[in-house]
Amino acid sequence: MIELQVDLGNRSYPVFIGNGLLSSDRVLGRFLTRRKTLVITNRTIGALYYDQLDRAASILGAELRPLFIEDGERYKSLETLSYIYDELIRQGFDRNSPIIALGGGVVGDIAGFAAATYQRGVPFIQIPTSLLAQVDSSVGGKTAINHAQGKNMIGSFYQPEAVAIDIDTLSSLPARQLSAGLAEVIKYGLIQDREFFAWLEINMQNLLGGSTEHLSYAIERSCTLKAQVVSQDEREQGSRALLNFGHTFGHAIEVSAQYSKYLHGEAVALGSIMALQMSQKMGFLDASVVERIKIVFQNAGLPVSPPNLGKVRYLKLMQRDKKVKDGKIRLVLLKDIGEAFVSDDYDGADLGAVLSMELGNV
Amino acid sequence: MIELQVDLGNRSYPVFIGNGLLSSDRVLGRFLTRRKTLVITNRTIGALYYDQLDRAASILGAELRPLFIEDGERYKSLETLSYIYDELIRQGFDRNSPIIALGGGVVGDIAGFAAATYQRGVPFIQIPTSLLAQVDSSVGGKTAINHAQGKNMIGSFYQPEAVAIDIDTLSSLPARQLSAGLAEVIKYGLIQDREFFAWLEINMQNLLGGSTEHLSYAIERSCTLKAQVVSQDEREQGSRALLNFGHTFGHAIEVSAQYSKYLHGEAVALGSIMALQMSQKMGFLDASVVERIKIVFQNAGLPVSPPNLGKVRYLKLMQRDKKVKDGKIRLVLLKDIGEAFVSDDYDGADLGAVLSMELGNV
Repeated sequence: MIELQVDLGNRSYPVFIGNGLLSSDRVLGRFLTRRKTLVITNRTIGALYYDQLDRAASILGAELRPLFIEDGERYKSLETLSYIYDELIRQGFDRNSPIIALGGGVVGDIAGFAAATYQRGVPFIQIPTSLLAQVDSSVGGKTAINHAQGKNMIGSFYQPEAVAIDIDTLSSLPARQLSAGLAEVIKYGLIQDREFFAWLEINMQNLLGGSTEHLSYAIERSCTLKAQVVSQDEREQGSRALLNFGHTFGHAIEVSAQYSKYLHGEAVALGSIMALQMSQKMGFLDASVVERIKIVFQNAGLPVSPPNLGKVRYLKLMQRDKKVKDGKIRLVLLKDIGEAFVSDDYDGADLGAVLSMELGNV
Repeated sequence: MIELQVDLGNRSYPVFIGNGLLSSDRVLGRFLTRRKTLVITNRTIGALYYDQLDRAASILGAELRPLFIEDGERYKSLETLSYIYDELIRQGFDRNSPIIALGGGVVGDIAGFAAATYQRGVPFIQIPTSLLAQVDSSVGGKTAINHAQGKNMIGSFYQPEAVAIDIDTLSSLPARQLSAGLAEVIKYGLIQDREFFAWLEINMQNLLGGSTEHLSYAIERSCTLKAQVVSQDEREQGSRALLNFGHTFGHAIEVSAQYSKYLHGEAVALGSIMALQMSQKMGFLDASVVERIKIVFQNAGLPVSPPNLGKVRYLKLMQRDKKVKDGKIRLVLLKDIGEAFVSDDYDGADLGAVLSMELGNV
């Protein structure tokens, strides 16, 4: 088992990565207590892993109770949140009762926001079961729900007490979901780790094939990079915004499709392609580099042809991005593989060309 | 003008207390910026003070926009919050756009929670216009909405960037509301300042009469005491719980009446009487001291006869208190005037007697 640390002073917490963590009372004992604990999950994940978790937890004297929410990004809503509050109150959970998120990014984001706001904050534990949640959303304390008009528009920064990543859960993950998670893995290479990107180029088939060894390395590397960024800029005043590479365009694509059609990771892949096109248009990247990156996304089983929503619609949706400042859309772009930067100093005509799909097959 | 400071490291902020602050661009200039700013208020307060605030703000180049919510504790709900989010998004507010709460405790609590959670947190400014909000809810960063089953069950700790208390706003405050605010003022004397309590005993008629000099002193003293407690225990891990004197019983009374019938301060007065009865029952207070305190509440125009909800209902409602730990209700009690403590070490039969109104006129 690997143990990383997210350094945030007296709110620091461990990230455990390994096999069989869900059934290890030794690992669970590092963060579970003898308390009534709400496990928020969905039917699919709950059926696969809840009993296993409950057995190990019962050895520690923790009294787990499952709460099932609907699966899918469109259920990361105020309505689902309201249902969670109702149940917390109905079942008499107090300020010291922990909440566990057992599932993917949707479960983690909404359970985290419930934990952040129920009785002004209760202990929270992340047990992510999708690759996307394991490499990205479970680490760093971003919690959120969506608004019909904008992704993750409502939320808070609220750090978990621990993150337990059981790689075994990936064996049940559908191929499409595995690919979606790889979009965020590729992102880390693109924005800050050229070597890791090169490793991904070579090892993509091993990752898609479910090699524990390769997945373990990719998760460890991703979490390490994310933990560093979060430690330096917890509340996204600066460098943390780089983790949003592909997301400004991607969120517009997700919202436009009303959180159906595309998985988050797929939208990020498409958004990354558009960010690369913009970087190329501005002269930062050669066409050959953009092509090289595109092939990696393709090899990961991800879409690389952004939908043509029209410039006007793209701009309207991107105006809702959380990086917007005084009406100006700020973009995360690449200077080179491994080197991202945030820019609001670009030509609107260049952005317009990218959004109008006028660049052809760059 | 008086300026206090709430010391919380890099999140410290000033509390301004004085006359005419709402129309003083000099004071507003200490915290307003040249940005689009949402002012959350209600129709009554908005009609009285919005234009005045807007004129002073416009001198500073701040673009204010009013948002009206319904008045009353029962509108401090998820529905009202959802409406605020809708408007923030519809009007294109970004992560740097401040939110101002202009009004009493209801406006301050829900506007604060919206500010804490919109785009994971935007700048927030409190301009409290009721005595209760000025002496209590605007200082300290507690934000919340109610749940049908429990008061302030959903919320977060989120400190404002400034609190501006314009004493002139009290001239338009209905007498009943002024009395309600005095309940929290009396509370500060009871829990930690014997001299201040004695001052209140002598000067209650001046306060009710609207003497600026006396109100100013009472607000300054209350805010100073609150700022000290908050600086030491922002997230209520310990001593901050003492500020909840009268609130465990009081919240039960408010929820039982579905947030109508009693103002929050009135419920706190009634809850304080019950806490005093319990303190007497446990041998901490003499009957004469309880009587002395009761007279001060009465002289402030507050109710002192708690409703007979029945023991079972009281216990059920009090189980929802945020101080409950492992099913045990924790009570804030008095050892003496100026000396409060938290206890979960009491005889259930004593509490039962208090809740059953079996003590007669203690």
